[in-house]
Formats: sequence, structure tokens, C-alpha cells
Amino acid sequence: VPKIVDHDARRAAIGLSVMKLVADVGAERATVRAVAAASGWSTGVLAHYFGSKDEMLGFAITEIADRVQRRIAQIDTPDPLQWVRAALIELLPLDEQRRVELLAWYGFLSRALNNPDLSSALQSAHRELEESVSSVLQRAVDAGRTVLVGSTADTALELLTFVDGLSLRHLFDPRRLDSAEMIRLLGGQIAKLGSDLPQT
Amino acid sequence: VPKIVDHDARRAAIGLSVMKLVADVGAERATVRAVAAASGWSTGVLAHYFGSKDEMLGFAITEIADRVQRRIAQIDTPDPLQWVRAALIELLPLDEQRRVELLAWYGFLSRALNNPDLSSALQSAHRELEESVSSVLQRAVDAGRTVLVGSTADTALELLTFVDGLSLRHLFDPRRLDSAEMIRLLGGQIAKLGSDLPQT
Repeated sequence: VPKIVDHDARRAAIGLSVMKLVADVGAERATVRAVAAASGWSTGVLAHYFGSKDEMLGFAITEIADRVQRRIAQIDTPDPLQWVRAALIELLPLDEQRRVELLAWYGFLSRALNNPDLSSALQSAHRELEESVSSVLQRAVDAGRTVLVGSTADTALELLTFVDGLSLRHLFDPRRLDSAEMIRLLGGQIAKLGSDLPQT
Repeated sequence: VPKIVDHDARRAAIGLSVMKLVADVGAERATVRAVAAASGWSTGVLAHYFGSKDEMLGFAITEIADRVQRRIAQIDTPDPLQWVRAALIELLPLDEQRRVELLAWYGFLSRALNNPDLSSALQSAHRELEESVSSVLQRAVDAGRTVLVGSTADTALELLTFVDGLSLRHLFDPRRLDSAEMIRLLGGQIAKLGSDLPQT
């Protein structure tokens, strides 16, 4: 009886293994051989799915981006500013899963500096998030929930930039910038979006 | 005739070599042997100055922090908000020197995650900058140049967090977030500090 293999599920599982290894040792040392050793998949199976190490890394990048987008798609609130807050919180390293995603993301960066394909995969993920946040900010403007100083695109970029800074500084100083402090500082940025409203 | 050695200058030069190597290959691969190979100093000379690899890395961290503080100390403007803007710009990767400092800083991070001494050196540098910015913001408040929504400490941390996010995103997407765009976005944050002033 031939074994039925769910290739998509297997690729996703491999993507997770790659992510964890990159978070742990960086992208340079996450070779096909190292992923095989860490994950239990044979180098033969890995070679079946990915033609090269960079193809494997690129797949892991899109897997992480998809995970984040899936979590954000589940946010269920009618208020656009609440949605923005919840979406940005999904990006912060508040638990082990998001911490691993973040460390892997930084791990890909050093290799992406010299690899246009990986660089492009990372940039696409950033821009998709910017567009999601920007479009919801536009809904907030249309609903009279906020008056923005700049464009929705700029405000989305500013918020995501702030979240990136928070996540990075958390890694440098996790006790000082703990989860509560990150959420408090992020909340301050969201609150400012509503603070320019005419007081009626 | 005995050769007179300027030990401070030599240590500083070694610190620069360590910084460049860490920016290039990361902290794990910046061993004493690798620094010797890259810099031309013998492992014997390096061993004379540093008892271990981590001592050498820790010295390079304080060297980078000192370089940044020296540049900031030279900012000459009587206006506190202009000072804050100029100080934050010194942190952005606008030229090769600041780009190398930034990449080295990120390079130290992965090793600092498991090394309290390195972690503490990085944290001290962050907190010193926060205190510098915070104290100048207090002068801006006292001079009636700004009305802050939060405390000066929070505002300083928010600005530095934004700068960290800009620098990081620049590395991910350097064409989109080029120097002009980073300066524009930072300028927007500074402008907001003055925008709540009563229009007189």
C-alpha cells in the first residue's frame, strides 16, 4: 500500500524546523544538513522539496509571514483602532512562539543582506503588513475614530517601526522591557491616534 | 631604545577591528584568532589586552558606545528639540561608519542573549542614551518648547525605540527606507513633540 504523503503539511513542518534552527544558530549555519540533523528529516527528503539552502530559507520566511497573517486574520473586533492594536501585539515577542519567529526573522536578515531573493521575501512580508494596517487605519479615519497627522501609509509604517524597535529592545533588555511594558508603550502610541479627536 | 606603546590607542584600534569583524561575521565567529587574522595584531598581543573572547567583545561594545557618545557630545545647538533630533540622527545608519556600528551592535545581541556581562554592557549603553535624551527633553519642557503627553523618560524611550525600528527596517529594505526617508520619518516624530503647543 503506497503511503499517502500530505506534501503541504510536510513542507510546513519542515518550514517550522528551519525557523527554529535559524532562531537558534542563525541562517549561515542552518544548512540542509543541519536542518536534517535537527528535524529528523533526511537530507534526501529535504532535497526533494528544496533545490538549495536558500530556497529552503525562503520557504521558511514565507511560512513565518503566513503564520503571522493567519493570526491577524483571526482578530475579531469591529473597532478599527482596537484591530490595529491587536494586530501589532501579534508581532511582539510576548510568548515563546513569537520570540522564535522574531529571532528567526533577525537571523534571516544577515543572509538577506547579500541575497536578493531572501531580501525580497522579507520585504514583501513587511509591505503586506503595512498595507493591512494602513487599510484599517483608513477605516478608522472614515469612521471618525481618528484624525491622523500624516497619511495612513505613514502612520502604519510609523506604528510598525515602533513595534520593531520595541521587539528589538526587548531582546537587548528583557527585564526592563517586559511584556507588560511593551504593551503599555504600544498602547500609548495607539492612544495618541485617538487623542487629537475633537472633544465632543 | 625601548618602543613606546600607546596602550589606550592600541586597545581602541583593536576595538575597531573587533567591531568590524562582528559586523561582518557575527559575534560567534569573532574569536581572538579571527580578530588576529583580520586585524594583523598577533594573538599574543590580543591576549595581553584581553583575558578572553568575551572580554574582548565587551571592550568593543563600550568602544562603540563611547564613539556614539563622543559624537553626540559635539552637537552644538541651543535648542533642545534640535539637539534631540541631531542626537537621534547620530544613531541612524546614514553612512558606512554608523552602519558598521549598527551591524556590530546586532551581532553582539545573539551572544549577549546567553552572556550576562555582554548583555549588561549593551543595556548600560542603551540606558545612558535614554538618560541623555530624557534630560534634554526636560530642558525643552522647562523652556516651554514642548508639552509632552507622557513623562520625559517615556518620551525618550519612545523616540529611541522608533530610531531602533527605523535602523532595523532600513537593513531589511534599504532602498525604500533610504537616508532621506529615515530622516523624514524621524523628523515627523520630533515635530509631534512641538505640535501640542498652544498656538500663540
